Amino acid sequence: MSAKSEYGELRSRCYELNMEIPRRNLAIYTWGNVSIIDRKRSVFAIKPSGVSYDSLKPGDIVIVNLNSEVVDGALNPSSDTRTHAVLYRNFPSIGGVVHTHSPYAVGWAQALQPITIYGTTHADHTVQDIPCTPPMSDEQIKGDYEEETGVQIIEHFRKLNLDPGETEMVLVGSHGPFTWGATGEKAVYNAVVVEELARMALITRQANPAVQPLKEALRRKHYERKHGANAYYGQK
Amino acid sequence: MSAKSEYGELRSRCYELNMEIPRRNLAIYTWGNVSIIDRKRSVFAIKPSGVSYDSLKPGDIVIVNLNSEVVDGALNPSSDTRTHAVLYRNFPSIGGVVHTHSPYAVGWAQALQPITIYGTTHADHTVQDIPCTPPMSDEQIKGDYEEETGVQIIEHFRKLNLDPGETEMVLVGSHGPFTWGATGEKAVYNAVVVEELARMALITRQANPAVQPLKEALRRKHYERKHGANAYYGQK
Amino acid sequence: MSAKSEYGELRSRCYELNMEIPRRNLAIYTWGNVSIIDRKRSVFAIKPSGVSYDSLKPGDIVIVNLNSEVVDGALNPSSDTRTHAVLYRNFPSIGGVVHTHSPYAVGWAQALQPITIYGTTHADHTVQDIPCTPPMSDEQIKGDYEEETGVQIIEHFRKLNLDPGETEMVLVGSHGPFTWGATGEKAVYNAVVVEELARMALITRQANPAVQPLKEALRRKHYERKHGANAYYGQK
Amino acid sequence: MSAKSEYGELRSRCYELNMEIPRRNLAIYTWGNVSIIDRKRSVFAIKPSGVSYDSLKPGDIVIVNLNSEVVDGALNPSSDTRTHAVLYRNFPSIGGVVHTHSPYAVGWAQALQPITIYGTTHADHTVQDIPCTPPMSDEQIKGDYEEETGVQIIEHFRKLNLDPGETEMVLVGSHGPFTWGATGEKAVYNAVVVEELARMALITRQANPAVQPLKEALRRKHYERKHGANAYYGQK
Repeated sequence: MSAKSEYGELRSRCYELNMEIPRRNLAIYTWGNVSIIDRKRSVFAIKPSGVSYDSLKPGDIVIVNLNSEVVDGALNPSSDTRTHAVLYRNFPSIGGVVHTHSPYAVGWAQALQPITIYGTTHADHTVQDIPCTPPMSDEQIKGDYEEETGVQIIEHFRKLNLDPGETEMVLVGSHGPFTWGATGEKAVYNAVVVEELARMALITRQANPAVQPLKEALRRKHYERKHGANAYYGQK
Repeated sequence: MSAKSEYGELRSRCYELNMEIPRRNLAIYTWGNVSIIDRKRSVFAIKPSGVSYDSLKPGDIVIVNLNSEVVDGALNPSSDTRTHAVLYRNFPSIGGVVHTHSPYAVGWAQALQPITIYGTTHADHTVQDIPCTPPMSDEQIKGDYEEETGVQIIEHFRKLNLDPGETEMVLVGSHGPFTWGATGEKAVYNAVVVEELARMALITRQANPAVQPLKEALRRKHYERKHGANAYYGQK
Repeated sequence: MSAKSEYGELRSRCYELNMEIPRRNLAIYTWGNVSIIDRKRSVFAIKPSGVSYDSLKPGDIVIVNLNSEVVDGALNPSSDTRTHAVLYRNFPSIGGVVHTHSPYAVGWAQALQPITIYGTTHADHTVQDIPCTPPMSDEQIKGDYEEETGVQIIEHFRKLNLDPGETEMVLVGSHGPFTWGATGEKAVYNAVVVEELARMALITRQANPAVQPLKEALRRKHYERKHGANAYYGQK
Repeated sequence: MSAKSEYGELRSRCYELNMEIPRRNLAIYTWGNVSIIDRKRSVFAIKPSGVSYDSLKPGDIVIVNLNSEVVDGALNPSSDTRTHAVLYRNFPSIGGVVHTHSPYAVGWAQALQPITIYGTTHADHTVQDIPCTPPMSDEQIKGDYEEETGVQIIEHFRKLNLDPGETEMVLVGSHGPFTWGATGEKAVYNAVVVEELARMALITRQANPAVQPLKEALRRKHYERKHGANAYYGQK
C-alpha cells in the first residue's frame, strides 16, 4: 500500500515525535517507538518495525486500525503495535503511546521492581510508585505475546486501582517502560520523565539504603498543585 | 500586565541565567528556575511557571516584589516564587537564587542526607557538609507550602549556625537543591557545583564505604585560600 | 608498501566503520579497532596500530591476509590483528570484527563475569548470558598472546556449545569485549549493544540484588520473533 | 608584567592543552590546570588562577621559573603552581603536568584508595595500582601547602619505589589526580586515562565485589607490548 495524502499530517507529527526518542537519549538504533491516534478515524500512526532513527522518513510511518491491521503504508508496523492498540482501546482518553529501552527504566523493569516514590520530582507526576507488571505466564508468552503485554498493563492497573489519567507510565516486568498521555507530546515527555525518575530513585537508594518512601502529605501536595482542582502550577 | 521597558535589562539577564540551566544539564523541560534581585527597586525577576526552556523568551520573565506579587509581566511566576522571596528577605546580601532538579543533588535530598564533605573540591566551596533540611511537618505542607519551604531553609541555617555567605547551597529534604550567591552568575555556578559535589560524594562512598569526612585542617586550608583574609586563589 | 587502488573500497568502508567507534562513545584515542573481510580475496582490512581516531585517514587502513601478514599498506596493523584473524578463520560466516574498551563491558570483563540475561533487550540479541572467557594461563600469555586470545574465544564457545551466528559477542576476561557479525555494520552494532546490555545489567542488580535471570519462555520468544523461522520483527 | 613575544609559542601550546580539559569533560569552570616546561630556559607556562576556560585566552598564560616566580605575564599563576614546580624539579624527564577534578578520579582520591589494577586497559598504562598519597599531616597543611602537595607525591613514589617514567599518574589523597608525561600532550592524555581507569575500576567492583587484582603475567605482557624493549604496539 502506498502512502495516502489524507494521512500526511498524522504521519508527519508521528515522525517528529519518534525523532525525539534518540534526541532525548531514550533509545539507540531501532529500540523504541511512538504512536499517536486519530480518534475520529479510529486509526493510529506508528513507527515501522526495525527501521533505524538514522534513516527514518515521515513517509515510512505506518497507519493501522485498532485491530492493528495496516490501513496505509508500505512497511510493516512496529512489532509492538498490538500492545499500543490494547492501550488505545482500553484507555479512551489517551492520544499517544511511547515505548523505549531507556537504560534506568529498563534496569528497574528487569529488576521486577516498581520505582519507589522518594521525592517531589516524582510526586509532580504521580503520587504512586511507578507500577511494574509481574512476569508473564508461559501461556501468555506463547500466545499472542504483544497483545498479552497490553492486557497485562490493563489488568495490573485494574488490580492496583490506578487511573491511567493520573499514572501515565508503567514498567513491563523484564522488558521496559511504556508511557502515554492526552497527546503524543505528553507521552514522549512522560518517557523522558520515567527515565529520570528511575535514575534519581537509584541514586537515592545508593545515598541511603535505609531511605523510606515519600510521606503522604507531600505526595498529595505536589500532585495537587499540578493536577488538583486548585492547581496553580503553570499558566492558565 | 505587559512587559515594561524599565525592566528590560533585568529580564534579559534573568533569561540568560535561566538558559544556563539546560545548557549545564541541570534540568530538563521546566524543572528549574533562576531569579535575580534588583535591591534598589525591591523587585526580583524570575522564570514563569511551567514554561519549557525550549520555548522561553526574555519577555516571558516575570517581575515580582518581595511579597511575591507580580509587578510586571503577562505570565504567572514560578510556583517556587515564594521560596525565593523568603530567601531574599532573610539573606540580604544575596543577588540571585537557583532551584533545579539535577539528579545527584535530588538523590541526596530524597535520601534525606546532607552531602558529606570528603575532599578539597568540596572545601573550596564550603567547610561544612551541604545541609539537608528535615522532612516538613504536615501542618507546614498543608499551609503556605512554598513559603514554608523557604522558612525551613532559614531555620535550618539558624539551627546549624551556618552563614549563608559561606554556605551558599542547601538540599530541601525530599525535594532538591536551592543555591544562591552575591550575583545570579554565582548562584548558577553554585547549582552546577552542588550537583558535581553530590556526584563525587556518591562515587567516594562507593569506592570506600568506610571513608571518613575530610580532616579539619584541610577543610580550613582550602576554604581560606579561596575565601579567607589572606586568600590567594584567583586574581585581585 | 603503498596503498593499492584495488583495496580502495575495502579501506574506505573499514575507515567509516572505525569512525563509528568514537562517534558512539565506545572508545577514546586509539582504544579500539574494527576490521572487515573480503572472503573472495581472503584478506581483511583493519585499523593501524596506535593511530588516534582524531587523525585516522582512509589510506591508513592496513590490508592483511588470514595469517596476519601485511598485504598492502604503509603502517603496522592493530596489535590485535592476530585475534581478528583467528575469528575469521574459525567463524566462516562472519564479515566483520570489532574490539573496544567501552567502560561497562570492560567492567564486567575485568570482573570475570558473564553478563547475565535479565530482560528482553538482551533476549532480542542472544538467549544466553554474554560469555566471559576465564583468565588465560601464564603459558598462553607468554606465548603468541594475541593469537591465544582468539583461540580462547573459539574454545570457550565450543565448551559452552554456543553458535557464533546466534551469540555475536564475547567478553575476554580481564580485557574487554569483542563482537562480530555477518557484516562490519552488524559487528559495530553489536559493540554498541554489548555496552548497553552491560550497563543495563549493572543497573538491574543495583535496583534488586536478589534478581533472577530472565525466564526461559521469554528468552525464547524474544529471540524467535527476531531470529526464528517465523521471525516477524523488521521488514522482509 | 606584559606578555613577551619570546614566550608566544610556549603560551600558545599551553593554552591549547588547557582547552583540552573542558573538551574532554575533565573539569568545569576553573577546576584544573595544565603546564608545560621549556627545560632550556628553565621556565614553565601555566594557566592563570581562577580564570574560567570559557574566557581563557593564550595571552593569559603565565610564565614562571622553577621557584614559581612569575617571569612573564599579567596574571597570577594557578594556585597549584608550586606543586607543578616540585614535580618538574624532581622528575627531570617530564615535559608537562596536568591537574584536574574529574569526578571518578576525585572519588577514589577522596576515598583514600589507590585505583586497583583489574585489567589490561590499566596494564597498557602502568603495571601498578594508581597510587594514592596518604592524608597530609596538619603541619604540612599549615606550612607551604602547595609545595608540600608536590613533596608528598615525590616521597610517596620514593616509598613505593615507583618510576615516574613508568607510572605517570597519582591521586593526591582527599584531593584529586595529577598526571604528567614526556610532553604536555602525553600528560593530558594521562589525565583522560586516569579518569577512565577510575570509572572502569568502580564498575568492575560493582559487577563483582569479590574480584581480585589482575594476574602478574598479564600485567607484564600488556605493559611490555607497549613499553618494553621489544614493544610492538603502535608505529615505529
